[in-house]
Amino acid sequence: MTEIKFKRLALIGIGLIGSSIARSARQNDLAEEIVCAARTADTRRVALELRIVDQAYEDPVEAVEGADLVIFCTPIGTYEALAQTIAGHLAEGAIVTDVGSVKSAVVKAVQPHLPAHVHFIPGHPIAGTEKSGPAAGFAELFIGKWCILTPTPDTDEQALARLTALWTAMGSDIETMDPDHHDLVLAITSHIPHLIAYNIVGTADDLEEVTKSEVIKYSAGGFRDFTRIAASDPTMWRDVFLHNKEAVLEMLGRFTEDLTALQRAIRREDGEALFDIFTRTRAIRRQIIDAGQETAEPDFGRVHGPKDEG
Amino acid sequence: MTEIKFKRLALIGIGLIGSSIARSARQNDLAEEIVCAARTADTRRVALELRIVDQAYEDPVEAVEGADLVIFCTPIGTYEALAQTIAGHLAEGAIVTDVGSVKSAVVKAVQPHLPAHVHFIPGHPIAGTEKSGPAAGFAELFIGKWCILTPTPDTDEQALARLTALWTAMGSDIETMDPDHHDLVLAITSHIPHLIAYNIVGTADDLEEVTKSEVIKYSAGGFRDFTRIAASDPTMWRDVFLHNKEAVLEMLGRFTEDLTALQRAIRREDGEALFDIFTRTRAIRRQIIDAGQETAEPDFGRVHGPKDEG
Repeated sequence: MTEIKFKRLALIGIGLIGSSIARSARQNDLAEEIVCAARTADTRRVALELRIVDQAYEDPVEAVEGADLVIFCTPIGTYEALAQTIAGHLAEGAIVTDVGSVKSAVVKAVQPHLPAHVHFIPGHPIAGTEKSGPAAGFAELFIGKWCILTPTPDTDEQALARLTALWTAMGSDIETMDPDHHDLVLAITSHIPHLIAYNIVGTADDLEEVTKSEVIKYSAGGFRDFTRIAASDPTMWRDVFLHNKEAVLEMLGRFTEDLTALQRAIRREDGEALFDIFTRTRAIRRQIIDAGQETAEPDFGRVHGPKDEG
Repeated sequence: MTEIKFKRLALIGIGLIGSSIARSARQNDLAEEIVCAARTADTRRVALELRIVDQAYEDPVEAVEGADLVIFCTPIGTYEALAQTIAGHLAEGAIVTDVGSVKSAVVKAVQPHLPAHVHFIPGHPIAGTEKSGPAAGFAELFIGKWCILTPTPDTDEQALARLTALWTAMGSDIETMDPDHHDLVLAITSHIPHLIAYNIVGTADDLEEVTKSEVIKYSAGGFRDFTRIAASDPTMWRDVFLHNKEAVLEMLGRFTEDLTALQRAIRREDGEALFDIFTRTRAIRRQIIDAGQETAEPDFGRVHGPKDEG
């Protein structure tokens, strides 16, 4: 049987995802010691006060010292320098992984710098909320969510089994795939949705004919659903778009073509074309609910009525 | 004091909105008799079984007979023929209103056909869910939500006061505005969000490189939020786009321009431009929550963990 428990888990970065891993690892007894590295003193203080880590270091080198599991939980743009910094300090046989939303660029940025005596297996839990920071995490974040790992053909089998066991213990379902394919799948299921959400919120913010207070007042008509993901961490998302450029531009091209066709249907008053696409999309919602990836409650199960204001 | 209670409330159409009005009117004792008209026998049967109406007619003429309040709750495309059909049967002094998501086209379609002895005051409750049909409604739907009325300068003041009192009693906050301005505000806060949600779900459905089952599995990355509003009633939304063409095309033009600028920033790897827009959009989310139009719970307050699957 695969030994799950690690001796020392080093989280580089302790935001929403890092702090959720810390909480879940502690709750499920997955590591003897949990430490983190964080650049700002305030983040380290909060992480220690929340008692989700045993130690919080400014220097990632100190965090990885003696760690048998190192997880990068910082924005992707920091990975290359981070890999260079810690490379000489990683323990023999340590597993190094990450939680970034892009995988090909991560392999290119990290792999070349790591010593041969560690196992690098990139990962991506498909979980999160629009909140950021160490106080935003919670132990249940990964339960029932997919976690994608992108091992290579020469990834050590035992290391892969241990990492799989860790995510399974935190409640995730595991899937493995090729980094390039991951980036294409995530471009359409995550990156483009975020981009267009950021975009429409920006468009609304710039209008002169419609005031900002009107946009806010009447946002229940649909707009507010987009503001949720447009409230996600700006640094993380800047890095996603910079590091998954090709797949994002490819998917964005298709999105724009399709939108132009819809625009044309509206201009020509082609009700049939509109009805056809609006009908087709309903089925997908149903399948997502059936797959257990969404609640069947109307309106996301938002509370209607007076409690809304609480 | 304005008398709120109506003698006979006739709902033309008994879907999500119509049935929510019926439930709320009954619960708050706002009408002595509540009747509806519905084209299909099954809808009438369900409405009667749910005991949300006293009578259900196939013919809208029978429903409006003797009614002092008539509310159009069918897709906008049906309004003109409906107004022609019922015009000769409306009671002296009756208030005629609607719940449609477009207002200028509604005024043009309905007003010319109505007799001078009724009061036509278009309305639009900014409330709803992605569900359709008489069983989807609930009495609390309008509580804490805005309802926009678009009276003209010669609208009868007492009729406006009664309609305002009705919506207030159902829990709504009332705002009045010009129909053209309504259509511009809703184009950005509701119609464009629905259009791009329908569009991205369609784009994802057409992909060959990414399978539909992958889109469904990994939808928690952001995509699933869009599927909620892309599951809304196709007939209703077809009619919205056909009847608010000018404002939708205008707002869509701006959205596309802004998206092109974002696309350019990604292609040029202009991280600063991306970071700027991603930062600006966070503030709007905060303001929507502060205005009581959204829950502050992360992830819409979706339950995380095992309960998700229930």
